[in-house]
Amino acid sequence: MPIELKEQVLEANLELVRSGLVLFTFGNASGIDRSRGLVAIKPSGVSYEQMNSEDIVLVDMDGNIVEGSLKPSSDLATHLLLYKEFPSIGGVVHTHSEFATAWAQAGRSIPPYGTTHADYFYGEIPVTDELTQEEIEGDYVLNTGKAIVRRFRNIDPLATPAVLVAGHGPFAWGTTAMSAAHNAVLLEAVARMAYHTTTLNAACTPISQPLQDRHYYRKHGAKATYGQGS
Amino acid sequence: MPIELKEQVLEANLELVRSGLVLFTFGNASGIDRSRGLVAIKPSGVSYEQMNSEDIVLVDMDGNIVEGSLKPSSDLATHLLLYKEFPSIGGVVHTHSEFATAWAQAGRSIPPYGTTHADYFYGEIPVTDELTQEEIEGDYVLNTGKAIVRRFRNIDPLATPAVLVAGHGPFAWGTTAMSAAHNAVLLEAVARMAYHTTTLNAACTPISQPLQDRHYYRKHGAKATYGQGS
Amino acid sequence: MPIELKEQVLEANLELVRSGLVLFTFGNASGIDRSRGLVAIKPSGVSYEQMNSEDIVLVDMDGNIVEGSLKPSSDLATHLLLYKEFPSIGGVVHTHSEFATAWAQAGRSIPPYGTTHADYFYGEIPVTDELTQEEIEGDYVLNTGKAIVRRFRNIDPLATPAVLVAGHGPFAWGTTAMSAAHNAVLLEAVARMAYHTTTLNAACTPISQPLQDRHYYRKHGAKATYGQGS
Amino acid sequence: MPIELKEQVLEANLELVRSGLVLFTFGNASGIDRSRGLVAIKPSGVSYEQMNSEDIVLVDMDGNIVEGSLKPSSDLATHLLLYKEFPSIGGVVHTHSEFATAWAQAGRSIPPYGTTHADYFYGEIPVTDELTQEEIEGDYVLNTGKAIVRRFRNIDPLATPAVLVAGHGPFAWGTTAMSAAHNAVLLEAVARMAYHTTTLNAACTPISQPLQDRHYYRKHGAKATYGQGS
Repeated sequence: MPIELKEQVLEANLELVRSGLVLFTFGNASGIDRSRGLVAIKPSGVSYEQMNSEDIVLVDMDGNIVEGSLKPSSDLATHLLLYKEFPSIGGVVHTHSEFATAWAQAGRSIPPYGTTHADYFYGEIPVTDELTQEEIEGDYVLNTGKAIVRRFRNIDPLATPAVLVAGHGPFAWGTTAMSAAHNAVLLEAVARMAYHTTTLNAACTPISQPLQDRHYYRKHGAKATYGQGS
Repeated sequence: MPIELKEQVLEANLELVRSGLVLFTFGNASGIDRSRGLVAIKPSGVSYEQMNSEDIVLVDMDGNIVEGSLKPSSDLATHLLLYKEFPSIGGVVHTHSEFATAWAQAGRSIPPYGTTHADYFYGEIPVTDELTQEEIEGDYVLNTGKAIVRRFRNIDPLATPAVLVAGHGPFAWGTTAMSAAHNAVLLEAVARMAYHTTTLNAACTPISQPLQDRHYYRKHGAKATYGQGS
Repeated sequence: MPIELKEQVLEANLELVRSGLVLFTFGNASGIDRSRGLVAIKPSGVSYEQMNSEDIVLVDMDGNIVEGSLKPSSDLATHLLLYKEFPSIGGVVHTHSEFATAWAQAGRSIPPYGTTHADYFYGEIPVTDELTQEEIEGDYVLNTGKAIVRRFRNIDPLATPAVLVAGHGPFAWGTTAMSAAHNAVLLEAVARMAYHTTTLNAACTPISQPLQDRHYYRKHGAKATYGQGS
Repeated sequence: MPIELKEQVLEANLELVRSGLVLFTFGNASGIDRSRGLVAIKPSGVSYEQMNSEDIVLVDMDGNIVEGSLKPSSDLATHLLLYKEFPSIGGVVHTHSEFATAWAQAGRSIPPYGTTHADYFYGEIPVTDELTQEEIEGDYVLNTGKAIVRRFRNIDPLATPAVLVAGHGPFAWGTTAMSAAHNAVLLEAVARMAYHTTTLNAACTPISQPLQDRHYYRKHGAKATYGQGS
């Protein structure tokens, strides 16, 4: 089971490269095996070209290395906190993808300007508050996770599977590591469209709540009508 | 004949991928055999890499499946209405291509800023009205088609073979499925240029009517002078 | 000699494709053999994938076909006028490349915002006046050439080897067909940078005349210091 | 040793091509062997496709050719001055990469809008003053270097390994030629994100000093926690 998890996490990391979301060693994906309490995560600063599943680091929920000879991603503490606080998720991805990062740097949540957004993200994709000096100089990586969790106090993380960390960049998640990677790709596509929308029409408002509901529930929930599910 | 139609529709769907207009399973193309009253359309939520002509679903004009084991695209009802209301068209394509979608989200029709536009689209590429709550919560996919048809009350659909559905994205059409796909590609190119034009010069106005006429009729109609036609 | 010219013109047309400047059958390149008074030009509306040197059409200075079974580019009359009026040029290229066309549609000349521009284009890249209704409804393609020539009354065409036709797109030229194609590629790169420059700083002014002179004459003229020339 | 240096410099030049930073023969990379006082640099105006390590020119600190049959890059004097004035650097790269050049042409330093910037560049990426007419008409290439050095009077060049030359484009550097090339790639990525950030939010301010410090020192200095270093 841990071997299979490491392969899933490797594939999710490589999906980020294939989709053009990462440059050099930017970005990281992880996945969790909740029955064993183990998280598999990309090693820190290793090139994607050379990475294989043996390089994926296996840690317990306290961040202790259980398997692997490399150091885990320096963002590990954020991943672990998201797994603890969002029990429904199975994978987490962090990138500095271009347009999602631009919205994060601009300190703006991404409004649901259209149905592409509504198909995958329920409501706006929120931006966190900026971290305080104390949070930055303290346990910074953990505090980044805490800022995300605070922002999601009244949001279902699987309905809105991404966040923009202010002045930093996006985190996305999903039921598996690969689903988290796909959500990171969809987030970037939505962020690009939203950028061009707001620069075409600065007064643009979100689509109506009924249209948001229609599209979201078309792809999600018991009454979904999209795809080949029965 | 239905087999050939399915291959044409497969090719039109793959053209969308080759041209970079679709991400994951976004988008769908269909074609009609008017002599038999049959429409061939992409299945819902199937990956383009794995799709072959056997996966293309054949339906009658009421949407009943005539051939195929997969569910048709969830946008089927929009396609069928367009075939019924626009008797001159033979193919329909729907995408969420980046710049056409940005104009649709911004709620702006694309003005004919230049001859690239005028060569392929006569007049502006119109944006529909937003659907009402009643239309969204009713037969939404059919009502999307109705909003398009209302917008084209005084427009020849083959002269202006594309529309922007407000808050959603573009539909394009043509005499065949492949012609519809080409028009979707041309629409995206025109939408990109128009975006950069209006952000360079917010006061930019359309080219003159004589210039629009000159370019449109250079490529279309009895007096066309472009290409190798006699 | 005509065979070699046709191969050069084929290569220049393919360079436009390789550089991403053309979509479908957009664009055309030609070259002239002044000793024989013959121009080789892309055929109209033929796909680049299938084109070979036999398809290139050879015409005399009045546009009569001397060799070739296909119709020449519908822009032929513009090319011929430029060869007649600009005796120093040996090749002409027309594209609808994205950013150069956006400037043409916006009706704005491209200011020399930096040394990339100054290395290849002396002074601004000018936009023509819009054609009048009479010019459009008359010999439109020839009149497009006349509008270009009028705009260059006091400009050396080899020092500024490109123009933006208002509401239409760019023409570029050079000493050979391939040089014209390279200038079309450089124009698009300069147009992209200038777009991002003016949207970053709407008040941006051209670089100083001494800097323009320094860069232009570094690559051109008797005192050029760039490259491996003696 | 000089042979190895030439291969390093060749690889750094090719990295610029692989990363999409250069068009035609734009751009140049060099590296220094400080123990021998020798600099290896790209030849002027030679195509990257044909370049091999034998074409890399070896010069002494006065610019005299020590090895090689080609002329060195026309920007050599800038490179040499940077090596003399910044004793900690081992490689220099000059490009006209699209977004970094747009900021240089707009005359704007790139503010540290986010942690992607802060991970690699400490503080803003500064733009130089414009050169005076006297500087341009005098020893222009050397004076370009002097303008850079003046701008870095109070900046550690290895902490902020890039500059924007006003109206021209970026120079980047690093401990080796390849490190300089990587910094040029990172600069372009940061410049793209910053462009989209400032056009999304014209009032956007830099991230806080504590956050800049946290990210910069996470990857640099004795307490670095990123990567696989012990």
